[in-house]
Amino acid sequence: MKKGRLIVLSGPSGVGKGTVVKALMERNPKVRVSVSATTRQMRPNEVSGIHYDFLSHEEFERRIAENQFLEYAEYVGNYYGTPEEPVNRMLEEGLDVILEIEVQGGLQVMQRRSDAISIFIAAPSFEVLAGRLRGRGDTDEDKIQKRLQTARREYLVAPQYRYVVVNDRLENAVDDVQAILRAEALQTEHQLELLKEAE
Amino acid sequence: MKKGRLIVLSGPSGVGKGTVVKALMERNPKVRVSVSATTRQMRPNEVSGIHYDFLSHEEFERRIAENQFLEYAEYVGNYYGTPEEPVNRMLEEGLDVILEIEVQGGLQVMQRRSDAISIFIAAPSFEVLAGRLRGRGDTDEDKIQKRLQTARREYLVAPQYRYVVVNDRLENAVDDVQAILRAEALQTEHQLELLKEAE
Repeated sequence: MKKGRLIVLSGPSGVGKGTVVKALMERNPKVRVSVSATTRQMRPNEVSGIHYDFLSHEEFERRIAENQFLEYAEYVGNYYGTPEEPVNRMLEEGLDVILEIEVQGGLQVMQRRSDAISIFIAAPSFEVLAGRLRGRGDTDEDKIQKRLQTARREYLVAPQYRYVVVNDRLENAVDDVQAILRAEALQTEHQLELLKEAE
Repeated sequence: MKKGRLIVLSGPSGVGKGTVVKALMERNPKVRVSVSATTRQMRPNEVSGIHYDFLSHEEFERRIAENQFLEYAEYVGNYYGTPEEPVNRMLEEGLDVILEIEVQGGLQVMQRRSDAISIFIAAPSFEVLAGRLRGRGDTDEDKIQKRLQTARREYLVAPQYRYVVVNDRLENAVDDVQAILRAEALQTEHQLELLKEAE
C-alpha cells in the first residue's frame, strides 16, 4: 500500500487553521490529524486521547529522553508535543496525517522529516487578522496586540515552509490545500514505479 | 501584473497530449499554446501562424545563429523549433504558455529556463498505449512497434520532468494538471510578497 503523507500546517492564531483542517477531513476520508501530548491539566470539557494525550511531567520527560516526539516545546511551565509512533502508524496505513502546530514545532518536524509537506496558512492581511481576533469576542486589546506581534514573528519563519496558502474564503483555502496534496503525489519521485514498465 | 508560467508538456505519441492541452485551454482562459516554427512544406489544410510558422531553411538557420529558439531540432531534413520571443511576450501578459514538445526539446527548455514547469504525460500502460495507437486507424504494425520503441526511449527521459501525469481518464488528467498549476503558484517562493506585510 502507498504510504500516507506527513503534512505540517501552521499559521497565526485566528487565521482559521482549525476550520481548514476540519473541512479537509470532511472532504477527504484519508486525512487524519495527530493528537498532541501535554502535561497541562485536563479541562472539564476535554477527553484524553481526543483533545490531547494527558501525560505526567515525568512520563513526558521520559519520552523526550527516548526521542519519542516528532517535536515538542515547553510553554508556561508545561510540555506540549507530537508523539511520533501513532503518526507513523497512520502513515503506514496509507493515511495523510496533518500536524496543526506552532512554527517552532513545524521547523523541528521539517528537520526531522524532510519528506513532510509544510504549509503556512496566512491571513489576507494583518488588518483582517486583527479583525478576526477581535471578532472572536476577545475584547482585551492588549491580548490582541500580543497575538499580532506573535503573528509577525511567525511570518518571519513562514518562508521556510514549502507552501503559503491565504485563508481568504475558506472554500478557496481548502481547494488550495487539496491541490497541493494532489500535485505533490504527481511529483516525478513519487511516480517512478509507473515509469519502470518501459525499461 | 503577475507573469505567466512556462509549461513544458511531453509524452509519447498516442498518449493524448493534444486532447489534454485542448481541455486545459477550454477550462482556463489564461492558458495558451506556443506555435512552433518549421522549415517543412506547408500542407493544404495548414495555416501559417496557426499550425506552424513556416520559415525558409535560411531564415531558420539565421534565427538559430541569433539564439532565438527556446529549443529546436532537425528531423528528416527539416527544422522544428519554438521561437522564444512570442512566448516571452505572452508570459509578460500574465498568460500561462504550454509548449507541447518532444522530450529532447523539453530537456533543452528545462536547461534554458529552470523556472519551467515540466510535465510528462504517461499512458496507464504500454498495452493501453499500443491500443490507442492501433485505434487511430493506423494498421501498419511496423509503424506502431516503432512508435512504442520511441515511447520507451521517452520514458527513460521522463524522470527529468518535475511531474508525471497518467492520462487514464481525460478529466482526471486535466484535473491533475490544473492541481499542479494551482499548487506551483502556492509555493513559498511565489508568495514572498504576501509575507512582507509582517516585516
